[in-house]
Amino acid sequence: MSKPIYVLNGPNLNLLGVREPEIYGYTRLSDIEARCTELAAARHVPVVFRQTNHEGELIDWVQEAREHASVLILNPAGYGHTSVALLDALKALSQPIIECHLSNPHAREPFRHHSYVSLAAKAVIAGMGAIGYELAIEAALRLIEK
Amino acid sequence: MSKPIYVLNGPNLNLLGVREPEIYGYTRLSDIEARCTELAAARHVPVVFRQTNHEGELIDWVQEAREHASVLILNPAGYGHTSVALLDALKALSQPIIECHLSNPHAREPFRHHSYVSLAAKAVIAGMGAIGYELAIEAALRLIEK
Amino acid sequence: MSKPIYVLNGPNLNLLGVREPEIYGYTRLSDIEARCTELAAARHVPVVFRQTNHEGELIDWVQEAREHASVLILNPAGYGHTSVALLDALKALSQPIIECHLSNPHAREPFRHHSYVSLAAKAVIAGMGAIGYELAIEAALRLIEK
Amino acid sequence: MSKPIYVLNGPNLNLLGVREPEIYGYTRLSDIEARCTELAAARHVPVVFRQTNHEGELIDWVQEAREHASVLILNPAGYGHTSVALLDALKALSQPIIECHLSNPHAREPFRHHSYVSLAAKAVIAGMGAIGYELAIEAALRLIEK
Amino acid sequence: MSKPIYVLNGPNLNLLGVREPEIYGYTRLSDIEARCTELAAARHVPVVFRQTNHEGELIDWVQEAREHASVLILNPAGYGHTSVALLDALKALSQPIIECHLSNPHAREPFRHHSYVSLAAKAVIAGMGAIGYELAIEAALRLIEK
Amino acid sequence: MSKPIYVLNGPNLNLLGVREPEIYGYTRLSDIEARCTELAAARHVPVVFRQTNHEGELIDWVQEAREHASVLILNPAGYGHTSVALLDALKALSQPIIECHLSNPHAREPFRHHSYVSLAAKAVIAGMGAIGYELAIEAALRLIEK
Amino acid sequence: MSKPIYVLNGPNLNLLGVREPEIYGYTRLSDIEARCTELAAARHVPVVFRQTNHEGELIDWVQEAREHASVLILNPAGYGHTSVALLDALKALSQPIIECHLSNPHAREPFRHHSYVSLAAKAVIAGMGAIGYELAIEAALRLIEK
Amino acid sequence: MSKPIYVLNGPNLNLLGVREPEIYGYTRLSDIEARCTELAAARHVPVVFRQTNHEGELIDWVQEAREHASVLILNPAGYGHTSVALLDALKALSQPIIECHLSNPHAREPFRHHSYVSLAAKAVIAGMGAIGYELAIEAALRLIEK
Amino acid sequence: MSKPIYVLNGPNLNLLGVREPEIYGYTRLSDIEARCTELAAARHVPVVFRQTNHEGELIDWVQEAREHASVLILNPAGYGHTSVALLDALKALSQPIIECHLSNPHAREPFRHHSYVSLAAKAVIAGMGAIGYELAIEAALRLIEK
Amino acid sequence: MSKPIYVLNGPNLNLLGVREPEIYGYTRLSDIEARCTELAAARHVPVVFRQTNHEGELIDWVQEAREHASVLILNPAGYGHTSVALLDALKALSQPIIECHLSNPHAREPFRHHSYVSLAAKAVIAGMGAIGYELAIEAALRLIEK
Amino acid sequence: MSKPIYVLNGPNLNLLGVREPEIYGYTRLSDIEARCTELAAARHVPVVFRQTNHEGELIDWVQEAREHASVLILNPAGYGHTSVALLDALKALSQPIIECHLSNPHAREPFRHHSYVSLAAKAVIAGMGAIGYELAIEAALRLIEK
Amino acid sequence: MSKPIYVLNGPNLNLLGVREPEIYGYTRLSDIEARCTELAAARHVPVVFRQTNHEGELIDWVQEAREHASVLILNPAGYGHTSVALLDALKALSQPIIECHLSNPHAREPFRHHSYVSLAAKAVIAGMGAIGYELAIEAALRLIEK
Repeated sequence: MSKPIYVLNGPNLNLLGVREPEIYGYTRLSDIEARCTELAAARHVPVVFRQTNHEGELIDWVQEAREHASVLILNPAGYGHTSVALLDALKALSQPIIECHLSNPHAREPFRHHSYVSLAAKAVIAGMGAIGYELAIEAALRLIEK
Repeated sequence: MSKPIYVLNGPNLNLLGVREPEIYGYTRLSDIEARCTELAAARHVPVVFRQTNHEGELIDWVQEAREHASVLILNPAGYGHTSVALLDALKALSQPIIECHLSNPHAREPFRHHSYVSLAAKAVIAGMGAIGYELAIEAALRLIEK
Repeated sequence: MSKPIYVLNGPNLNLLGVREPEIYGYTRLSDIEARCTELAAARHVPVVFRQTNHEGELIDWVQEAREHASVLILNPAGYGHTSVALLDALKALSQPIIECHLSNPHAREPFRHHSYVSLAAKAVIAGMGAIGYELAIEAALRLIEK
Repeated sequence: MSKPIYVLNGPNLNLLGVREPEIYGYTRLSDIEARCTELAAARHVPVVFRQTNHEGELIDWVQEAREHASVLILNPAGYGHTSVALLDALKALSQPIIECHLSNPHAREPFRHHSYVSLAAKAVIAGMGAIGYELAIEAALRLIEK
Repeated sequence: MSKPIYVLNGPNLNLLGVREPEIYGYTRLSDIEARCTELAAARHVPVVFRQTNHEGELIDWVQEAREHASVLILNPAGYGHTSVALLDALKALSQPIIECHLSNPHAREPFRHHSYVSLAAKAVIAGMGAIGYELAIEAALRLIEK
Repeated sequence: MSKPIYVLNGPNLNLLGVREPEIYGYTRLSDIEARCTELAAARHVPVVFRQTNHEGELIDWVQEAREHASVLILNPAGYGHTSVALLDALKALSQPIIECHLSNPHAREPFRHHSYVSLAAKAVIAGMGAIGYELAIEAALRLIEK
Repeated sequence: MSKPIYVLNGPNLNLLGVREPEIYGYTRLSDIEARCTELAAARHVPVVFRQTNHEGELIDWVQEAREHASVLILNPAGYGHTSVALLDALKALSQPIIECHLSNPHAREPFRHHSYVSLAAKAVIAGMGAIGYELAIEAALRLIEK
Repeated sequence: MSKPIYVLNGPNLNLLGVREPEIYGYTRLSDIEARCTELAAARHVPVVFRQTNHEGELIDWVQEAREHASVLILNPAGYGHTSVALLDALKALSQPIIECHLSNPHAREPFRHHSYVSLAAKAVIAGMGAIGYELAIEAALRLIEK
Repeated sequence: MSKPIYVLNGPNLNLLGVREPEIYGYTRLSDIEARCTELAAARHVPVVFRQTNHEGELIDWVQEAREHASVLILNPAGYGHTSVALLDALKALSQPIIECHLSNPHAREPFRHHSYVSLAAKAVIAGMGAIGYELAIEAALRLIEK
Repeated sequence: MSKPIYVLNGPNLNLLGVREPEIYGYTRLSDIEARCTELAAARHVPVVFRQTNHEGELIDWVQEAREHASVLILNPAGYGHTSVALLDALKALSQPIIECHLSNPHAREPFRHHSYVSLAAKAVIAGMGAIGYELAIEAALRLIEK
Repeated sequence: MSKPIYVLNGPNLNLLGVREPEIYGYTRLSDIEARCTELAAARHVPVVFRQTNHEGELIDWVQEAREHASVLILNPAGYGHTSVALLDALKALSQPIIECHLSNPHAREPFRHHSYVSLAAKAVIAGMGAIGYELAIEAALRLIEK
Repeated sequence: MSKPIYVLNGPNLNLLGVREPEIYGYTRLSDIEARCTELAAARHVPVVFRQTNHEGELIDWVQEAREHASVLILNPAGYGHTSVALLDALKALSQPIIECHLSNPHAREPFRHHSYVSLAAKAVIAGMGAIGYELAIEAALRLIEK
C-alpha cells in the first residue's frame, strides 16, 4: 500500500461552510476531507487531512510530509503569498507538490498574484472550489500510479 | 445532448510530442485530443479541439465558442501573458473558462507570472502535463452536469 | 474628390450590438459604418470601413491606408495597448491619425492606460460610444477641408 | 431651455493665441468661447465659459457646475495630472464630464500620461486643437438631446 | 550542400526602400534578399528569405526553420519587444539564431530596449542598416563552416 | 560569569544534516550546538541554543534574550526576509545582535536579498556553513570580553 | 447587555511599560486593559483584552471574535504590514473593526506605510499612544449604541 | 483659558451633508463644527473651524495656527496626498497635529495610501465619519490638559 | 535701463527669519529683498520681489514676468516638486529662469529630488541659504549684460 | 592666509573649449582656472585647480583636499551619478563642498537626475556654464570669510 | 591612407584565452588583434588595438580616438553597464562607434541588459565570440569606404 | 607552504584610524594588516595586504590573486555596490572569495543594500569592525586547511 497523500490546509479554511452557509454553501472542510478520503481509498491510498491557522505548524507538517507522504496537496491560503519559510520547507521535499486554491488568486487583488509556494510546486489547481480538491486527489493518484 | 466543450490551444503546442520525443515523450497533441474526446463522450458531451499559432484566429475561435460551447478550456501558451485582445474576447463569454497549462508558469521566468487570461478565467489547472487536460475535461463535465 | 477616410477597427469590435442587445443596445458596427459613410458622403468624401481580429491584417490595412487614405481613424481595441508593430506601421503614415475608443480607457484597468497608438496619433476621441465615430468623421473632414 | 454647458479651463490657457501668434496661430481663448457659444445657442443651450490659474477656483467652479450645468467640459491643463482634490470635486457630479485637451497628452512626456480627471470623465477629446472644443460642444449637445 | 539559411523579417519591413526613397534610400528588401542570396551562394549555401506582418505566420515559419534551416537570421521588428509566443517558437530550435536590426534599438525609446528574441538568440547585429544583413550572412556561414 | 550567548535558529534548520547526509554532509544542528557550547565554555560563557519553526516562538525567545543574554546570535532563516514583527522584537534589545546564515543570501534569489533582521543587527556572518556559527561565537566572545 | 468588545494586541506589545520605564513611561498593557475595561463597563459593555506574539493565535482569536464580539479593536503591530492571512481572517467578520497603533506608522519607515489590516478596517486611530485605546473604546461604544 | 483648537478642512468638505442627504446623511460640516465647539467649550477651550477649496488658503491658515492654536486638527482631503507645500507649512508648527479623515484612505484607491500630512502629524483618526471629529477634539483636549 | 529681474518666492518662505530666529537666524525675506535690490540697482537693474503661498498666484506672476521681466529667479519651495501647471507657465517664457533653493533638495527626502521647475530652468543655485539669492542676482546680471 | 580652495574636475572636462570651438565657444578649462585664481587671489585665497578622467585619482585628490583645502568645489561630471566611492570620500571631509555643473543635469536624461555627490554637498550651482565656477568661487569666499 | 580603426577593450578581456584554455579555447586577445590588423591591412587601414582594466584610461583612449580614429570599435565589458563618464566621452566623437561583445548581454543577467554605450553607438555586434571582432572590422571598413 | 591569502581593500579605507582618531579609534589599516599577518603566519600562511582608491587597480590585483592566492578576502568599499567590472574579475577566480565590511551595509542607506561582489562571493562578514578581518582570516585558514 502506498504512503498517504497529505492534504494540508492553511489559515481560515476551517471557516469553510460554517460562515453564512445559506450564501456560501454547506460544504465544510470535513465534507471535503470525507470526499478526498473516499476517492483515494478506492485506489488503496490513505489520506492525511489537516488544517491550521499557524504558519509554524504548517511548516512542521510539511516536514512530516517529507518523511511520510507520497504526494503533498497544499492549500496555503494567505501564507502562500508571504512565507519564504514555507517555501524553504517545501524545497526540502522530493515528493511532488500540488498547490490548490478554492478561488483563482490571479483574478483577485494584485498581492494575491505572487505565490512563493508556486516556486516549489509541480502543479496548481485553482478556482474550482471544493471540486478542486477532488481533481487534486485524482492528479495525486495519477502521479502515484505512474 | 450538451453543447460541446471547446478546447483551444495557442502557439507552438502543435510541436508537442513531435520535438525530440525520446526526451519529451511521445504524447502528441492529437493523443491529448483523442483522450479528451473519449472522456467527454463517455458522459455524452462532444469536444471541439483545435490549435493555432495565430492570435487573431484564437480570438475568432473564442468568439465562436461564445455561441456554441458549454465550457471553454484554453491553453493560451505565450499569448496568455501578452494579449489584451484575447482577454477582451474572453470577457464576452458567459460560459465558464478553464485556463490550462502543461507546466506551472509561476515556477518559470517572471514574465510568465502574469496572465491576462486569468483575469477572465474561472479556474486554472497547470503543471500536470497532458494529464492536466483530462483534469480540465473532468472539471468541465462537473460544471455542465451541475 | 478627396481620397477616402479609412476607419479601421481592431479585435472584438465585430461583437458590437450583437452581444446581449437588450443590455448593450442595438447599435451594430454596420450601423456605425452606415452613419459614418453618410456623414462623409454629404461632404463628398468616401469612407473605407473594416474590422479584423488579426493584428497582422490590421497592419496590412494601415500600410494600405498609407497609400490610399486622406485620414486614418483607428479603433485599435486591445492591440492599442500591446502592439509595437502597429505603432511602427502608423509611424510610416504622413496622414493624420485619429485614435477612437468606445469607452474611456483611462477610467478602466491600469493596463489600458498605456496606448502605443497614442504615440503616433494626432488626436484621441474616447468614451462617447458610437457617437465618437461621428465626431471622429467630423474631425477628419475638418482636417481634409483645412 | 436646457441648463448651460459649463466649459472650464485650467492654468495657462489664457495665453492661447497671445503668445507668438505668428507661430501658434491667432486663435485666442475668447475666439473659442465665441465659437462654442454660437454652436450651442443654435441648439438653444447657453454656455458658461471660464478660465483660471487657481486650482481652488477651478474646484469652486466645478462645485457650481454640480448645481447649474447640464454637461461639464473641462480642460484641466496641468492640474489634470496632479490634483486629487479636483478629482474629488468631479466625483460629486452626476452630470456627464467631457475632458478636453488641445494636444494629445499621451504623445508627450510620461508625467502627462496619467490623468486624475479621466477617472471621473465619461469622455476624452484630445489633440484636435481649437476644433476639439467644437467637437466637445457637439458631444455635449448630443448628450443633452438624448 | 548545406541546409538553407533562413532570413525571416517581421512587420513593416516590406516598406523598406519604398517609403520616401529620396530620403531613406533606394535599398529595398528585395535588394537585400538578392545580396544575401549571392553572398551565400558563393559558399554553396541556399537562402530562404521572407517577410510578413503576421505574428502567427512568423511563428509558423520559425517552426518550419526548425526542420529545414542551418541557421536562422531573424529581424523580428516590433514583435521582438512584445511576443512571448515568438520566443517560445525560437526556444524549440537547436540551430543558432542571429537577431538582426536595421537600427540600434538600445539607442531608441525605452520600450525597444527589451527583446524577447534576445533571450533565445546566440548573436545580435544591430544598427548597420542593410549591411547588417550581409554581416549576419557572413556570421551564419562561419557557423555552418565551423 | 557572563550571561549566556543566545543562539536562536529559525524555520527548517532542524533538517540540517538529516536530509540526504551523503550529499549535504553529516553535520547536524546538534553538532553545531555542541561545538558552539564547547568554544564558549572554554572562555567561561554558557550558551543557550534553540530552534523553532514558529515565528511567534522565535519572538518569545528574542524577548527572553532581552533579559538574559549577553549577545544574541540569530539565524532567522526564511523569517528574516519577511517578518517586521521579528524586527520589532530585535529593536527592543540593547545587546549586540549577530545575524548568521549558512549560505550567502545575496548570491541567491532576489527575494532573499532583503533582510529585516539586518536593520537591527550589528553584524552579519554568511556563507561559511557550520563554520559560520563558530565565527559568530568568536565574534560574540570578543564583544563580551571587550 | 451587549456582546463584548474584543481588544486584540499583536507581537511585542507585552513589552509596553516594561522596557526602560524611566524613558518610555510606566503605562503597561495591563494598565491600558484596566482603563478600557472601566470605560466600557460604565456603559455596560464587557471587554476581552489579549496579547500574543503568535500570528496563528491572533488569527484564532479574530475567528473567535467573529462569533462573540460586538466590535473588534486590533493593534496588529508588525503583522499588520505583512499578513495576508490576518487580512483574510478579518474579512470574515461582519462586525466593525478598528485598527489601533500607538505611534503613527505613516511617519515611520516606508515598510510600515502599507497595512493589510486597513483593507478590512472601518477605522484607524494611530499616534495617540495609550490614549488611542481609550478613543478606540469610545468609538466602539458609539458604534454599539448607534 | 487655553489657546483655541484649530480645525481646518480641505477641498470639497463643504459638500458634506448637502449632496444627496437621503443617501449620505444630513450631517453638514456646520453640524460637525457645532458639536466640536460644544465639546471643547465644556472644557473651556475655544475652537476655530474653517473650510476652503484653496491650497494656498489652507497654508495661510496653517501658518496662522502656528501662532494662535494649541492643537491643529486637519482634514486635508485631496491635498493631503499631493501637497509638499502643505507639509512644509505643517513642519513649521511645534504644536501637535491630528490628521482626520471621514473615511479610511488606506481602504480606498492606491493614490490615497500616501499622505504627506502624515509625515508631520502626531496622530491620525480615520474612518469614523463625523464621530471622528469628536474623537479628535477629545484627543486634542487630552493633549492640552496633559 | 533694463527690464526688471523678477524674484518670485513660493509657499512658506514668508516664515523665513520669523520662526525661532535664535535658532534659524534673523535674516528675513525682506532682508533678502533689500540686498537683492541693492545689488541689482548698483548695475542699474530694478528688482520685482514677491512671495505667495498660492500656486495660482505664482502662476499669474510667472505669466506677468513673461511680459515684463529680463530674468526670472524662482524659489518654488514645495510647488517645485509637484506642479505641472507651474512648469507649463515657465515653458511659455523665453527669458532665462534661475531656480533657487535655500537648502540642497537633493540631500533631503526622496520626494524633494524631483523638480518640475528644473525641466524649464536654465540654472539652479541651491544650498547657500540667503547668499544663494545674491549669487542668483549676480548670475542674472551677467545674463543681462552679456 | 587661508588654506586654498580646491577646484576638482571630473572626466571629459579637459575637452571644454577644445572641441568645435566655433560652436561651443572658446572658453577652455585653463581660462576658467585663470579666472577662478584671479577672483580668489583678490581676496587673498589661493586656488588648487585640477582635472582627471580617473575616478581613483579624483578620490585621491578629495582625500588630499580633506587635509589641505578650505572649501572643495567639485564638478564630478559623469562620476557624480554613479560613484558611491566618491561619495564616501566626500563624507570624510568636514569642509563645505560645492557641487558645480556646466549644464543643469535635472533638465537632461533621467539617469542624470540622481547625484551621489549631492548627498554630501552643502550647495549646488548648475547650468550657468563657465560663469558657474565664478559663482562657486564667490560662494566659497563667503564661506571662508564668514 | 585612412586614419586607423581604434579597437578598445575594457576590463578583464586580457584574460581571454588565458584562463582554462582547454575549456574556453586558445584564442587570446592578441590573436584577435592579429586577425583584425590583417583584415584591415588588406584594405589599407591601420588598426590601434588596446586593453585596460582602468575606466579612466579607457576614457583617455576614447578622447584620443576622437582625434586620431576613423572608426571606434569598443568592447566596454563591465563598464558599458555602469559608466556615464564613458558615455560622455563617446558623445564627443563624431566618428561612428561600433559596440562589440563576445557574448549576448541581453541573454544574461538583467543588470547586463542596460548599456550606456548603446546610447552613443551607431551599431552593436554581440554574441559571435572572436568572430564578432572580424565582423566589426568588416563593418568599420564598409563605413570608411562608403 | 600554502599560497598566500590576499586581503584587498577598496577606496577610502586608507583613512581608517587616521581621521579623528579620538572619535573613531586608533586602529589603522596597517594595524589590521599586522594582526592579519600574525594570525595567518601562526598557521604558516603568508598574507598579501593592499589598499587602493582605483577601481582598475583593484581589478588588476584581483586578476593577480587569480594566479597567486589561496583565498581572496575583499573589502570592496564603495565599488562593491556599483562595479560590474569588479564582479567579472571575481567570477574568473576559482578560489573562495570572502567579502568583508567594517559596518553592516544592510543597516545603512538603500543604495548600499545591493552588492555585485556578493554575486561571486562564497561568504560575507560585515559589521564587526576591525575584528571582522580577523574572523575573515580565520575563515580563510579553515578553507585552506580543509
